[in-house]
Amino acid sequence: MHHAARMARARQRMEELGVDALLLSVGPDLPYLTGYEAMPLERLTMLVMRRTTEPVLVIPRLEAPRVAPQPGVFTVEAWDETMNPVARVAELIRGDRTVAIGDHTWARFLLALESELPDTRFCAASTVTGPLRARKDDSEIAALGAAARAVDAVAGTLRDRRFGGRTEREVQRDVIELMLDAGHERANFAIVAAGPNAASPHHEASDRRIEHGDVVLCDFGGVMAGYCSDITRMYVVGDPTAEVRDAYQALVDAQEAAVVAACVGTSCSDVDGVARGALASAALEQYFIHRTGHGIGVEAHEDPYLVAGNAERLATGHCFSIEPGVYVAGRFGLRLEDIVVATDHGPRRLNHAPRDLAPVD
Amino acid sequence: MHHAARMARARQRMEELGVDALLLSVGPDLPYLTGYEAMPLERLTMLVMRRTTEPVLVIPRLEAPRVAPQPGVFTVEAWDETMNPVARVAELIRGDRTVAIGDHTWARFLLALESELPDTRFCAASTVTGPLRARKDDSEIAALGAAARAVDAVAGTLRDRRFGGRTEREVQRDVIELMLDAGHERANFAIVAAGPNAASPHHEASDRRIEHGDVVLCDFGGVMAGYCSDITRMYVVGDPTAEVRDAYQALVDAQEAAVVAACVGTSCSDVDGVARGALASAALEQYFIHRTGHGIGVEAHEDPYLVAGNAERLATGHCFSIEPGVYVAGRFGLRLEDIVVATDHGPRRLNHAPRDLAPVD
Repeated sequence: MHHAARMARARQRMEELGVDALLLSVGPDLPYLTGYEAMPLERLTMLVMRRTTEPVLVIPRLEAPRVAPQPGVFTVEAWDETMNPVARVAELIRGDRTVAIGDHTWARFLLALESELPDTRFCAASTVTGPLRARKDDSEIAALGAAARAVDAVAGTLRDRRFGGRTEREVQRDVIELMLDAGHERANFAIVAAGPNAASPHHEASDRRIEHGDVVLCDFGGVMAGYCSDITRMYVVGDPTAEVRDAYQALVDAQEAAVVAACVGTSCSDVDGVARGALASAALEQYFIHRTGHGIGVEAHEDPYLVAGNAERLATGHCFSIEPGVYVAGRFGLRLEDIVVATDHGPRRLNHAPRDLAPVD
Repeated sequence: MHHAARMARARQRMEELGVDALLLSVGPDLPYLTGYEAMPLERLTMLVMRRTTEPVLVIPRLEAPRVAPQPGVFTVEAWDETMNPVARVAELIRGDRTVAIGDHTWARFLLALESELPDTRFCAASTVTGPLRARKDDSEIAALGAAARAVDAVAGTLRDRRFGGRTEREVQRDVIELMLDAGHERANFAIVAAGPNAASPHHEASDRRIEHGDVVLCDFGGVMAGYCSDITRMYVVGDPTAEVRDAYQALVDAQEAAVVAACVGTSCSDVDGVARGALASAALEQYFIHRTGHGIGVEAHEDPYLVAGNAERLATGHCFSIEPGVYVAGRFGLRLEDIVVATDHGPRRLNHAPRDLAPVD
């Protein structure tokens, strides 16, 4: 059972780091270790995992029916509406000196725990779980590959959809529904940015109507069988200008160069430098205003981050996006993104949708 | 401009409470005060609002284009990919002794701030914002009313949809699409729980096919113009059993009694007691395993909570759900939920969809 194996590895790291207890609430660490995902609500759900005792999932009574029993992995303890779950968690770890708490845990719960346990040192759970989660095993790479193929199909279907005359938001609705139809249990986001709007990398789809001549950036992803997808493809209504066509070709070249550079042993910073250098040789570097990529797995963004200054070296099983972009304020924006896995035989793309500037109606 | 007015009220409470600075990241406080919502990502977005200086929104460079300037409300400071935004926030509040941080802020950012500022005392931002947000003004009540009417319409449309033979997940897709069609910018959740699944109050829609005789619980809500909706209605394929019919009638009566009791000046605990007492008189109290309701506004669940032991008294402008339920493990589950506002003229329901056990095909 892979959850038990993951927990054993987490316990071993706790031992190495001198962490006495791990507290996991909302966020990806809990489903990674147990298969159970906490609801992002004011009623506390928290896995209490000490080095020496069996883990306990402290959960609101009304959510107890949602938890499938996992003998040997954790026991379940339900709290009633009038109980104080923070006090209960504090009781379970009293005496522990160093406690790691899930990175996404709500601050109000950390503050309440700190107040109950003034002598405990808290640190971020990612110090324990980050390196474990970053290196994917074969089943995880298969899951990421399946999610990638699903969004590849969506990117393909979009080529036959009408863009001109529709709003960004209408196209966004299409993208979300296509992701769900393709087997995703959840759509995390769908950026549809037309014309000058695409110069904002995280543009929120608006009621702007897509016009003839618009270059449209579509960046979307979700969760399929617990693992994330993330892809960016570009579409154009009518013919692109020579400037856009040239910039896009430079972007395709920069992305390819960065993918090829993403070998085991190369530093994250160096991969970022390759993308940046390729765009510099086309005099476009100043328009590339974000990092080259991010790790991906049970979380949409996770270690390793392909960013200048990150000396971490890529290792076998690292999965990450390679997504350089060119953003010209007030005029247009371009990005091209694939998920890549670092293997012993070199970098391997998980996305295979065509990478051209796709002509659409 | 209502954001400036809200900020002034927040500043006044900071003064009263001796809070020197307010730090807001992901979660509803930030859009409540500024209209801007932080993306739930590893790149820190944080409003730094001190008592004495102009607020600064510290934001990742690539999200800067999404921020509409709000002169007089806050200034914007963008950080580059290789900068440390936590260090920058710490610099902005150095010397402040008591700092309130948004309840939903990721623990990793609170831990990093605590490490930068070992002499600062942190507390939850809701001590500042909670009471402000709980009492809605007329425009907020109008927004909650519009969101309520939108989900009322969805509940009505569902009466004409086929349930029998379809899976819970298929009906859930319908509900989500209907909410978006009805004007919601976001669907927060859609519980569709058929037969025994409805005995789990937060059941996740499954591939279970809805059968003849199933009683189906539909609880759904989202966000419309920044304010939340939340409604529960019950549907039945064919004829309900006498047991279900009687239990449902008791539930309708209990909900009505609790709504009538929700007057300005009555304690939250007492309103909960009224619902519980009404179900007790039908010998159903043991099956009502959660509180009677929760506040609602820019957040789906917020103050005040209608739960035993909460002595807080309802005040004019408090908006909350009244949602008693009856959950019989392994057999069926029932819940009925409306949003109610406490006014000087008594409690007023914002939902008006029919409250019967709706017969569906």
